Amino acid sequence: MTQPTTQPNDLALFIDPRGNKHIHKLTPRGRLQTNHGEILFADIIGLPWGSQVQTHLGKTYLMVQPNLHDLLLNIRRAGTIMYPKDMGFILINMNIIHGVNVIEAGTGSGALAMMLALAVGSEGHVYSYDSRDDMQVLARRNLESIGLSNRVTFKCQDIAFGFDQSGVDALFLDLPNPEDYIPVVRAALRPGGFFGSLLPTTNQVSRLLEALQAHDFAFIEVCEILLRYYKPVPARLRPDDRLVAHTGFLVFARPIITGTSKPDQGE
Amino acid sequence: MTQPTTQPNDLALFIDPRGNKHIHKLTPRGRLQTNHGEILFADIIGLPWGSQVQTHLGKTYLMVQPNLHDLLLNIRRAGTIMYPKDMGFILINMNIIHGVNVIEAGTGSGALAMMLALAVGSEGHVYSYDSRDDMQVLARRNLESIGLSNRVTFKCQDIAFGFDQSGVDALFLDLPNPEDYIPVVRAALRPGGFFGSLLPTTNQVSRLLEALQAHDFAFIEVCEILLRYYKPVPARLRPDDRLVAHTGFLVFARPIITGTSKPDQGE
Amino acid sequence: MTQPTTQPNDLALFIDPRGNKHIHKLTPRGRLQTNHGEILFADIIGLPWGSQVQTHLGKTYLMVQPNLHDLLLNIRRAGTIMYPKDMGFILINMNIIHGVNVIEAGTGSGALAMMLALAVGSEGHVYSYDSRDDMQVLARRNLESIGLSNRVTFKCQDIAFGFDQSGVDALFLDLPNPEDYIPVVRAALRPGGFFGSLLPTTNQVSRLLEALQAHDFAFIEVCEILLRYYKPVPARLRPDDRLVAHTGFLVFARPIITGTSKPDQGE
Amino acid sequence: MTQPTTQPNDLALFIDPRGNKHIHKLTPRGRLQTNHGEILFADIIGLPWGSQVQTHLGKTYLMVQPNLHDLLLNIRRAGTIMYPKDMGFILINMNIIHGVNVIEAGTGSGALAMMLALAVGSEGHVYSYDSRDDMQVLARRNLESIGLSNRVTFKCQDIAFGFDQSGVDALFLDLPNPEDYIPVVRAALRPGGFFGSLLPTTNQVSRLLEALQAHDFAFIEVCEILLRYYKPVPARLRPDDRLVAHTGFLVFARPIITGTSKPDQGE
Repeated sequence: MTQPTTQPNDLALFIDPRGNKHIHKLTPRGRLQTNHGEILFADIIGLPWGSQVQTHLGKTYLMVQPNLHDLLLNIRRAGTIMYPKDMGFILINMNIIHGVNVIEAGTGSGALAMMLALAVGSEGHVYSYDSRDDMQVLARRNLESIGLSNRVTFKCQDIAFGFDQSGVDALFLDLPNPEDYIPVVRAALRPGGFFGSLLPTTNQVSRLLEALQAHDFAFIEVCEILLRYYKPVPARLRPDDRLVAHTGFLVFARPIITGTSKPDQGE
Repeated sequence: MTQPTTQPNDLALFIDPRGNKHIHKLTPRGRLQTNHGEILFADIIGLPWGSQVQTHLGKTYLMVQPNLHDLLLNIRRAGTIMYPKDMGFILINMNIIHGVNVIEAGTGSGALAMMLALAVGSEGHVYSYDSRDDMQVLARRNLESIGLSNRVTFKCQDIAFGFDQSGVDALFLDLPNPEDYIPVVRAALRPGGFFGSLLPTTNQVSRLLEALQAHDFAFIEVCEILLRYYKPVPARLRPDDRLVAHTGFLVFARPIITGTSKPDQGE
Repeated sequence: MTQPTTQPNDLALFIDPRGNKHIHKLTPRGRLQTNHGEILFADIIGLPWGSQVQTHLGKTYLMVQPNLHDLLLNIRRAGTIMYPKDMGFILINMNIIHGVNVIEAGTGSGALAMMLALAVGSEGHVYSYDSRDDMQVLARRNLESIGLSNRVTFKCQDIAFGFDQSGVDALFLDLPNPEDYIPVVRAALRPGGFFGSLLPTTNQVSRLLEALQAHDFAFIEVCEILLRYYKPVPARLRPDDRLVAHTGFLVFARPIITGTSKPDQGE
Repeated sequence: MTQPTTQPNDLALFIDPRGNKHIHKLTPRGRLQTNHGEILFADIIGLPWGSQVQTHLGKTYLMVQPNLHDLLLNIRRAGTIMYPKDMGFILINMNIIHGVNVIEAGTGSGALAMMLALAVGSEGHVYSYDSRDDMQVLARRNLESIGLSNRVTFKCQDIAFGFDQSGVDALFLDLPNPEDYIPVVRAALRPGGFFGSLLPTTNQVSRLLEALQAHDFAFIEVCEILLRYYKPVPARLRPDDRLVAHTGFLVFARPIITGTSKPDQGE
């Protein structure tokens, strides 16, 4: 089997001797510039992934393909961050699999849109709403950088007036006041579909829970995910001194059909 | 838009009034039997997802599509459990996206194989190794239940003699002694590919870290994911009294090519 | 040095082969009755602490002095529990040292009163308020069992009308609605003194924070303490599978004097 | 009741407008010097605790008595830190109450010695061992600053040769290699007494557990305490962004007497 090598315009992750990470697109005429010299991309296109490469001043960098985690944490950002630890759990809990249609609002920097676009595959679709034009320009650029912008339809409009879709499989609100939009969420989401939201404060969670209960949502869950890293030293294994103690509370729920269908009467 | 309804042989999640969950395949001649009466599947096939249905004795159940989380926690099991919280993070950190080829060992009940098969899509593939035949029979049945067994090749063989593949993108070991297989992992995994493992004890983690360092792996990370649920009561929001405090430590690493490629010489 | 031995009426902790703990007072005529025989206290008074003793049917128990942790978790209980992990931090954060005067309300089972009485020593004092007579009877009995009831004055009265003391060094409210009593807290606590409360829900915390801000409290802190146990097996060290995920949020604050004292004018 | 006021040579905690804390002894001729002016202690001695005081340039500071937490985190330090969250739990779990005799090694900066001296009261005693003279000079100064140096006997010697005391009630090792000293610990600690240690790495914990098991210790427990702070904003209550994720693992155990005392034979 041939070893995979870097191709023109691939995204590459460079790690310097201190462990800092830098993601760059390997444009044929581009270069990585550092305080300790530069690397011409033309020189390294075609090398195997996982190679160590040197600047013209002799500093060594490791060059590998970025993983999703790296991509998500390195995209151009504006506003708040959604962390990979939360996104992985969102995908599983909201059943974001090949072929599903999903709405998200707001778009933000497009980190979640990237993950959603990857997960829904070529047969699913993502509708991403944001009232701010500039954020969507940024998100679109981030999506294009990984070649997935065709799976996402950006909508620059206020969701107070509702979503343009109905019957979608999943809907995620990354907004400070999701409780204000639950009726329009219900109108867009199919019964039994998956609703989710990420909220920093307990007060927001309480308000959202009230709204969900008032609009016939069931399977309501609130959780948070803590990610604890360890120093990877075999003879002195121990947790890191500090950790990201809070990103947000995740709220999940599913709209149900009220009133009982009596199966023995065939409805 | 038409509302999605249950079709013959769909997997359905029934929730009883106490919140207990039951997953069943809606075979046309099947039935859900409970202490409080039964529901004939023939009566409920064709109802909208998200409906409430009643047993012939009048007990109400909610019927929705199971999400991945439900499927993963409800598959037939033998041996240890891999939790959705860990799987979501594994997918993101090991870059399990559409089209990748991935090896896992051991198969266990097939929970991780299910997730991997979903994530690699129709163009990727999963190779699942286990020395125990009975486990793979169980896992295959679990994969078939969600219609993804064609994406997984089961190998009932001892990995001490190596894997049959090389150049795969990712490789996950869910075994008590992963440190014994690092040379064969390196042979199967492409440089820059993604290695992962889940281990319950700190002693196992230390041994694996030693083996990874000895075989030119870089980007070594150790972490654990804690999932904390809250009681979803808006006026009395608080964490649950108890939580699953430990499933395992996640170890990630990537094989690199040693020796420096000097870009200024074009190599 | 002579080895310390059990004396009549000492409290002894017996641990059975399964690790279950039982605290008994070694009354000269008493006995420990188990499913596997009994131990007459007369037979074991005078043995060294740390001895293994047997029932008349040959079952072995370990006999040691109980520590505070054991005493606190084994006192007769009614209502909610205050955990040692929280109490230790309360003592340090509220400066409960030899000689201080402290108020607590409500008394509950007296667990916190026990800790406070131990910490304030012979020169400090504890005032414990509860509107329920039966709780104080229970708490008084618990205090007597460790010989510290003389350090605690029980007050069976409604604190809505205020406390009988003023200028105390510390005041702890273990009540569902501490926000209703902040003015009377301020009247009883000296400026710069220490206020604390333990609350299960986030909504209660928010209400208390509002009241504290409205009444010139400073140094307001909210925290929670998580205690994670590990299986103490050297070759397979790992966290316990489950943990007590929530007891309550601790809120601390100190009343300050508003208006500035200009030091250069000597006030 | 008269309001407590600052006395000459009291320790005072000054908090600046940004919340930074500064502890100073109110020597009659001393002063607090800041970037925004100074405060002469002579001007503020005699003011009530809890007062707000101003520098000669008009910057306001709050002046209160430090609590134990403040004192412990603000003592002059060399080497590693023991945190109040851990100390509170150590006191309760090791039964450090009025009148007990306790050994600690090593002394370090004396933070634990301070807590122990406070807890054992005037009738107990603390023996603090350290092979480094300079550390004990520092610790002694810290103890003197709170007037408790008479309750602590410092021993500058190597504990490999044993402790000078026997039959003590509790013994704490704050050393990297406690497993090397378990025989001398056993010789110094009374049967049923309390042993404790704080260790940063899992490997150290495993080694200590082995040594404890080999020397007839029972009630072996391993735990860690996580302290999570919240932003105390009533309308936006949420956990802090970051937390101290690891200080150390606490190990507790008690030496027992092996061989059974048969009570029915009077021993």
